[in-house]
Amino acid sequence: MQKKRVAVLGASGYSGEELLRILLRHPACEIRSVTSRQNAGSPIDSVFPRFAGIDLAFSAPDADQIASDCDVAFLALPHGLAAEFAVPLLAKGVKVLDLSADFRIKNPETFQKYYKEKHPAPELLDRAVYGLPELYRDKIRSASLVACAGCYPTSIILPLAPLLASKAVSMEDIVVSSMSGVSGAGRKVELAYIFPECNESVRAYSPVSHRHIPEIEQELSFAAASQKPVQISFIPHLVPVNRGINSTIVTRLTASDESKIAEIYSAAYAKEPFVRLLQTPKFPDTKHVTMSNFCEIGYAFDKRNGKLVIASCIDNLTKGAAGQAVQCFNIICGLDEKTGLL
Amino acid sequence: MQKKRVAVLGASGYSGEELLRILLRHPACEIRSVTSRQNAGSPIDSVFPRFAGIDLAFSAPDADQIASDCDVAFLALPHGLAAEFAVPLLAKGVKVLDLSADFRIKNPETFQKYYKEKHPAPELLDRAVYGLPELYRDKIRSASLVACAGCYPTSIILPLAPLLASKAVSMEDIVVSSMSGVSGAGRKVELAYIFPECNESVRAYSPVSHRHIPEIEQELSFAAASQKPVQISFIPHLVPVNRGINSTIVTRLTASDESKIAEIYSAAYAKEPFVRLLQTPKFPDTKHVTMSNFCEIGYAFDKRNGKLVIASCIDNLTKGAAGQAVQCFNIICGLDEKTGLL
Amino acid sequence: MQKKRVAVLGASGYSGEELLRILLRHPACEIRSVTSRQNAGSPIDSVFPRFAGIDLAFSAPDADQIASDCDVAFLALPHGLAAEFAVPLLAKGVKVLDLSADFRIKNPETFQKYYKEKHPAPELLDRAVYGLPELYRDKIRSASLVACAGCYPTSIILPLAPLLASKAVSMEDIVVSSMSGVSGAGRKVELAYIFPECNESVRAYSPVSHRHIPEIEQELSFAAASQKPVQISFIPHLVPVNRGINSTIVTRLTASDESKIAEIYSAAYAKEPFVRLLQTPKFPDTKHVTMSNFCEIGYAFDKRNGKLVIASCIDNLTKGAAGQAVQCFNIICGLDEKTGLL
Amino acid sequence: MQKKRVAVLGASGYSGEELLRILLRHPACEIRSVTSRQNAGSPIDSVFPRFAGIDLAFSAPDADQIASDCDVAFLALPHGLAAEFAVPLLAKGVKVLDLSADFRIKNPETFQKYYKEKHPAPELLDRAVYGLPELYRDKIRSASLVACAGCYPTSIILPLAPLLASKAVSMEDIVVSSMSGVSGAGRKVELAYIFPECNESVRAYSPVSHRHIPEIEQELSFAAASQKPVQISFIPHLVPVNRGINSTIVTRLTASDESKIAEIYSAAYAKEPFVRLLQTPKFPDTKHVTMSNFCEIGYAFDKRNGKLVIASCIDNLTKGAAGQAVQCFNIICGLDEKTGLL
Repeated sequence: MQKKRVAVLGASGYSGEELLRILLRHPACEIRSVTSRQNAGSPIDSVFPRFAGIDLAFSAPDADQIASDCDVAFLALPHGLAAEFAVPLLAKGVKVLDLSADFRIKNPETFQKYYKEKHPAPELLDRAVYGLPELYRDKIRSASLVACAGCYPTSIILPLAPLLASKAVSMEDIVVSSMSGVSGAGRKVELAYIFPECNESVRAYSPVSHRHIPEIEQELSFAAASQKPVQISFIPHLVPVNRGINSTIVTRLTASDESKIAEIYSAAYAKEPFVRLLQTPKFPDTKHVTMSNFCEIGYAFDKRNGKLVIASCIDNLTKGAAGQAVQCFNIICGLDEKTGLL
Repeated sequence: MQKKRVAVLGASGYSGEELLRILLRHPACEIRSVTSRQNAGSPIDSVFPRFAGIDLAFSAPDADQIASDCDVAFLALPHGLAAEFAVPLLAKGVKVLDLSADFRIKNPETFQKYYKEKHPAPELLDRAVYGLPELYRDKIRSASLVACAGCYPTSIILPLAPLLASKAVSMEDIVVSSMSGVSGAGRKVELAYIFPECNESVRAYSPVSHRHIPEIEQELSFAAASQKPVQISFIPHLVPVNRGINSTIVTRLTASDESKIAEIYSAAYAKEPFVRLLQTPKFPDTKHVTMSNFCEIGYAFDKRNGKLVIASCIDNLTKGAAGQAVQCFNIICGLDEKTGLL
Repeated sequence: MQKKRVAVLGASGYSGEELLRILLRHPACEIRSVTSRQNAGSPIDSVFPRFAGIDLAFSAPDADQIASDCDVAFLALPHGLAAEFAVPLLAKGVKVLDLSADFRIKNPETFQKYYKEKHPAPELLDRAVYGLPELYRDKIRSASLVACAGCYPTSIILPLAPLLASKAVSMEDIVVSSMSGVSGAGRKVELAYIFPECNESVRAYSPVSHRHIPEIEQELSFAAASQKPVQISFIPHLVPVNRGINSTIVTRLTASDESKIAEIYSAAYAKEPFVRLLQTPKFPDTKHVTMSNFCEIGYAFDKRNGKLVIASCIDNLTKGAAGQAVQCFNIICGLDEKTGLL
Repeated sequence: MQKKRVAVLGASGYSGEELLRILLRHPACEIRSVTSRQNAGSPIDSVFPRFAGIDLAFSAPDADQIASDCDVAFLALPHGLAAEFAVPLLAKGVKVLDLSADFRIKNPETFQKYYKEKHPAPELLDRAVYGLPELYRDKIRSASLVACAGCYPTSIILPLAPLLASKAVSMEDIVVSSMSGVSGAGRKVELAYIFPECNESVRAYSPVSHRHIPEIEQELSFAAASQKPVQISFIPHLVPVNRGINSTIVTRLTASDESKIAEIYSAAYAKEPFVRLLQTPKFPDTKHVTMSNFCEIGYAFDKRNGKLVIASCIDNLTKGAAGQAVQCFNIICGLDEKTGLL
């Protein structure tokens, strides 16, 4: 098998570390460039001792050099900066798997509203394919720019999209409470994230304004294929675990019983390599999916009030970031989608 | 101040330990009896080394003896067993503060449906006062049997009751996601609760059938004073902290803006010694209330969809159990409600 | 009881928070000044929401003003800065309880070697009393400047001092491994202390050069009253708990059996209000002492090799910092030593 | 590559789960039998949802059937029970990799003293090879019975053996403090291991009598090749992490400076695939080795007292159990030692 030459930009954060962990044992991958402005010149094990013995060093990111040396670039950069590198890399023919939010939202005005800055490269939005293989596999196959789905969005879109597409649940009154591990905040050195502030703490944050809201609603609206856009309530919470997201979703069943839910899920996901459907009334647990690319989904019907309660669990750094990007990479490269991910 | 002679029944669990912690420094309390069938004969510090030096030993519970020696009994017993002791203690004139679920639900059939057994003492249900001082202070004052409010219910009823009473929010489509620390499961030795199964784990459980549902709905219905009962979606989650509950509530605002919410809360709680109102958009954090009897409440209005998002935090063992019971005790005894609780 | 007027300088760190927690319910204390340069002008609950409803605000520290308004000042300041305020406060007659390291080490050259700067006020060293009540109660009683014992030192000196004083253990080959919760690092915003770097992590640090070494050795040498100074191996570890220090100490028993150890400990500590002696072979647990001012000590004799293994547990913020300072305060003020600490 | 047919006995504990995790993606392994008396008949994902989709079920252990179907058996059984199966399996020609303590200690009387029962199969002790590849690679290659090294012993023998063999450190006064994650206690449902008893807790246990002591001392004595056996102080601690052991070792350097330590370690381990040597004064962190088969070793010399401080970190379930067993399996099968372990 001919190996693809890949670059990982912004490799000193947690998503970057997870990308390296996966790609280093990916049989069809040769890592040619690992960038980190801050750590340029240092071996990767100076930041991540786990990678001791691996002969790779951080360099400052240089689009020209990457383009001359790599087939594919993974961007684990902050939003804004990602687009800055995506533009020249794409221009030089490198395929780009972007883990940032830069190309997820189709409407640049919505982007500007939530990210408080003008979209950095609106001309590329049409070209970008949303990187959620379960929904966009065919488009990803031929994409040059993949906007890998966000962590919370993945955990919410996967369980809801097939139900909305089947009109099995109402578009109204969807309420999502998500709980994320602290690595979801990135490797951010802020008071709110030091150990004694997070340990023995549970707290909601950004309760009506989280930046993932437009991304989630965009994809749920596409799935529902209705004229009216889907609007949800989304409340993220920070809980003291390193990795893992649990999203608990409450919506109204349109039918009077839940018998069709299992069918719909089975039709959508029974053959998916990374979606694990639980039989009702089993519910998922983040510890069953951490360090894996799986999304685990369970549900229960509340006969008393006609509501369907769904919960899904993913690892925010794997299926919610690096693993998903590698799954997209496998698709683009025509490999078995599970390559390097089991 | 003449001290009340008190008994703590079922003192070897976490609520019992918290009762002892609080009562041992309560200036108006003399602990005369501490019972634990399993540990009868052992000093309390054999189970809780924290209490070393305190000259108290567990005894087997004996209603006659307690009645002859105590004015007030705190029951930290499992449901069912609590009623077994409440009956003779009340008959002999002892005031009973019950931390179990036995007397919280007014309808014995509802009790039977959720607790899978016939109500053990339905004749006492009329006499029982629901032990949530913020709503029932006057009735508690003259009560002989207080059914102290449950942990999840306290965290949900406090933020919702005044809004429902004011018709400021809809009775329909109330969705509550709660996250509890593991002490909420009691001192239970089960596989699901050993450290490696809880640490680095987030999971929903009993998503449509938790036993606290009828208690919550009963009190919300009383608050709403509507003919139609309030029905909620309630999904509890287990998260890896020792203590603390966060309840995140989503409901529809009946008015078009949230200006009245602050007023309603202020009218209801500004003078309450143990309710802390946060100014929107601040949100509560369990770490601000653990080891205290406070309930912290924050909220935000989602203009996009007309929903009000509320979050509340309590310590499940304090305001959710032992602290609340002591607050009720203070009311019954005519003491300052904060006595021993600051 | 006439209340003492007190100031807490540097109140926005974890030791400062713990001081406030204790002093706010101390019956003989009136907090007149709470300083934090960084938060000057803000109410204390803006930093510590736990203190909502308490009418106190941070001010910038001002020695003159404090001197005119307070009898006693608690310094929860970084080393160096503490001395800067101690000097004028003492000059104006304020009693100073310093929680920093500035006045613990009697030899200013040793201080300079470990703290990499010249001692800021060597002229005060003679006047400073080491703030470990179990060893220096009488001197503390009449002190104007108390250098409260450090957290690791407290957990090590308490179990070792009486054994060394009795020549029951060897001065040679004392090995101490300590494990501390992350609050021991202060409220420091550094990469090493963010949640994902500390959670699921155990690590030794500063294995041969920790700044507490000279303080520990000075006090053990005083206790041993030998001509040769005591030298120990001290290896601190960071473990993922918020609060608590466990120190495990191995030393050689000079006698051939351990029968005298219980006697020595009992003679030294049986009447101490905050030392809890465990009967061999029981060992302490940090969770039995957190949020309390207790030091719990257990030991076991290893017949195979003649070594005595001792472990002690304290809460680093209470007996290791704020609680100890308040214990010293009680002594200075002629109060019952337990006042405000149970 | 012809695959070896393997059995995993006692697969429902944490070591068994880790064995399955590793063997399921091991390219030279076909899992033919997975036993658990308690779960016989259930698919493995009923106990470990992580393995959903894997078509394997637990069966009751049956030596005859395993012998007829498998080349190699991994025993993740409790001590005592392991020998019961090792005897018939070996008799029928199955190679046995035993993760229990049954065949680690060469002297059956020592076994009896520490394990409180007669050795179950002393006739096999001579045949058993101690399963620590770094020390016994050649013997493992031709072994039929491997007694895989214990978790604490691995973390202690690896850093100490080469130093003792080189006479670089004293055999006297070796002190080891180890901290283990709770999975080290197995999947044991006991009060001491429920979440609220372990979280926010640090505690030493079995301070002078842990069952790993004779195993450690036996191997250190072999390494030292002295007439006098090595005797250590070993104090294990339980800390609130799922996985990981840190062992901190203090011993006396025989030379006056530490210049030779790096050389000795390099000679012993530079080519080892799973030992990672840190340059002094870097110290290891369990989080760098968890979920891997690495042992990370760091050290520092204390010039003040001539002591060498060494710390090592492993994952107790990987290098301390399942990973080590697979490493031994690779050696026995003539495979690259890293197969399936990176």
